Amino acid sequence: MNVNGRHYRTIWTEGSGEEETLLIIDQTALPHEFRVVALHSVDDVCRAVREMLVRGAGLIGATAAWGVWIAVRTAPEGDFAAFMAQSMEKLRATRPTASNLVWALERQKKALAGLGRKEAVEAAHAEAQTIADEDAEFCRRIGEHGLGIIRELAARKGGQPVNILTHCNAGWLAFVDHGSALSPVYAAFNAGIPVHVWVDETRPRNQGASLTAWELGMHGVPHDLIADNAGGHLMQHGMVDMVITGADRVTRRGDAANKIGTYLKALAAHDNNVPFYVALPSSTFDFSLYDGVSGIPIEERNADEVRIMSGLSEKGQVERVLICPADTPARNWAFDVTPARLITGLVTERGVCEASERGILSLYPEQA
Amino acid sequence: MNVNGRHYRTIWTEGSGEEETLLIIDQTALPHEFRVVALHSVDDVCRAVREMLVRGAGLIGATAAWGVWIAVRTAPEGDFAAFMAQSMEKLRATRPTASNLVWALERQKKALAGLGRKEAVEAAHAEAQTIADEDAEFCRRIGEHGLGIIRELAARKGGQPVNILTHCNAGWLAFVDHGSALSPVYAAFNAGIPVHVWVDETRPRNQGASLTAWELGMHGVPHDLIADNAGGHLMQHGMVDMVITGADRVTRRGDAANKIGTYLKALAAHDNNVPFYVALPSSTFDFSLYDGVSGIPIEERNADEVRIMSGLSEKGQVERVLICPADTPARNWAFDVTPARLITGLVTERGVCEASERGILSLYPEQA
Repeated sequence: MNVNGRHYRTIWTEGSGEEETLLIIDQTALPHEFRVVALHSVDDVCRAVREMLVRGAGLIGATAAWGVWIAVRTAPEGDFAAFMAQSMEKLRATRPTASNLVWALERQKKALAGLGRKEAVEAAHAEAQTIADEDAEFCRRIGEHGLGIIRELAARKGGQPVNILTHCNAGWLAFVDHGSALSPVYAAFNAGIPVHVWVDETRPRNQGASLTAWELGMHGVPHDLIADNAGGHLMQHGMVDMVITGADRVTRRGDAANKIGTYLKALAAHDNNVPFYVALPSSTFDFSLYDGVSGIPIEERNADEVRIMSGLSEKGQVERVLICPADTPARNWAFDVTPARLITGLVTERGVCEASERGILSLYPEQA
Repeated sequence: MNVNGRHYRTIWTEGSGEEETLLIIDQTALPHEFRVVALHSVDDVCRAVREMLVRGAGLIGATAAWGVWIAVRTAPEGDFAAFMAQSMEKLRATRPTASNLVWALERQKKALAGLGRKEAVEAAHAEAQTIADEDAEFCRRIGEHGLGIIRELAARKGGQPVNILTHCNAGWLAFVDHGSALSPVYAAFNAGIPVHVWVDETRPRNQGASLTAWELGMHGVPHDLIADNAGGHLMQHGMVDMVITGADRVTRRGDAANKIGTYLKALAAHDNNVPFYVALPSSTFDFSLYDGVSGIPIEERNADEVRIMSGLSEKGQVERVLICPADTPARNWAFDVTPARLITGLVTERGVCEASERGILSLYPEQA
């Protein structure tokens, strides 16, 4: 996607051989600063994932895959196997809810099985590049399939914009390119269909306010930022034609873990007959789980993410401000699970299906 | 209620005769500074209501009533009637959704009917004091009635705290004393029943983070601040025993307008069989309206309340920070309406009733 006219992915390498460097966009600096950061060590990569310089299902997977390449090329000669096992474990522990993380590490493990350090460098590079390219291509296809849904809604709007509500950031910043939830929006916009996006600010980390609003603005897609509290009111008054979000993990029957608050929007959509879609590449499925509410572990993060807000001060500096009394305790769960019964459909790289085991297996028969 | 050991109401006068001064707590300075402000003119009072130095159903009503006293004592000798009509209209226009505002102005109008300026000063003072005292007393009774509900829940918890979720601030800061939604919580805490409050931060103005957390902390009630997005997850996992909120306007059949986002919590409570109560004094009823979603006008406020967040910087100063790109547009509706079908009961000064016309008329038969 474009940033001030130049095409970017969210993770890429520059240079070659020993000089080749892994680069990412530091998403914690957005929207106030566009900052590219180089990751040199496994610890750099872990920090980038844990502190959310990179975040989002697809991008976490791609970053973990590139992290394995970093591990291989920085491994000490003697302890290769032990260092790799330890690095894999470090990478795996960075974000407990992200299923793409585990998935990418497993793919790398298979790709490197039985290889020595030297062949492993090349194999890990190739696999990371493949994972990244697949992620971008799968997201492009999600956009194509979701475009069909938006086109149908537009046909009933008589030229008025299709109002689409989204929660958190499942745009290109959450993947390698295009995004999941926003990919159909970009596809519709690029096809000349009038769209308007309601951007949930997405407390406590404000990924909607800082990332989704920034992405949409850079691409020229009409949008308005709203408080997370506003969506129900908008739906009660016919101001939302569809909701589409991404997901961090989707179970075999279609329960979807996504950013905390997604479940509340799904309830409101259901109560007001607004279609509610979840967009995801197949790597986000966890076919080993059935019941998402009881089965998906929910990460609890630092309470200061709730208590302290970061933004641009009137002096033009990024500052952190405390929004509650100094001694107020807080709790901070990062995700919730939306039961399949509230989801109109899943938009995947293979097409759109019902959020049910039957629906999902119709697109992924190899998982039966 | 107590602030650092001294008893306060949210609005009061000090001095006597010409020297008598109307004082309020500037709630926009909380929680970082406890600031008492004097209001000398009708414009002072209007600004205090409009800019939310005072807010909350009961306190807005009491402030409007005291505002009429200010109008009478500052009226020019000749133009008394015209000045009063203009002042009433100014006061009425400050907050379009607040039904207590209109109610308090009507009461003053009746109290002053036919009086000249001199008698009116005394009559307006008496009526304002009565409205304020009634507000405090009604809130105290709401606490008594709500205490019964909490006591029943506590009986099933085997000594574990009753977990109560609330949205926005309907504590003593929203009234003259005690509060509506928090009055039963204080009553339970004072009665030795173990309670714990989940405090929704309540974007965009953060009344939960800045006011409810502060109030509860001052009183010693255990609580945790959470993002507005978290309540659904907590309810899915049995971590909420009841929800109780205040209201800005409740219709004849029990539809409740309250801070934006309340409807989403009511949906989650309904989906998880968590009882959802709305606490209100009778002045919050609007018996002229039936359908709240179509009938209650919803105030849209300045978009910068969404875009810009205020808090205490690391240097100890209150600063405003921009949380989205500088050119991002935003929309900001202040309230939503929770349909009666999602409300377990209404807690009023006369008792607890079903949220239905029948239930409400059983407590308020004079409105039949």
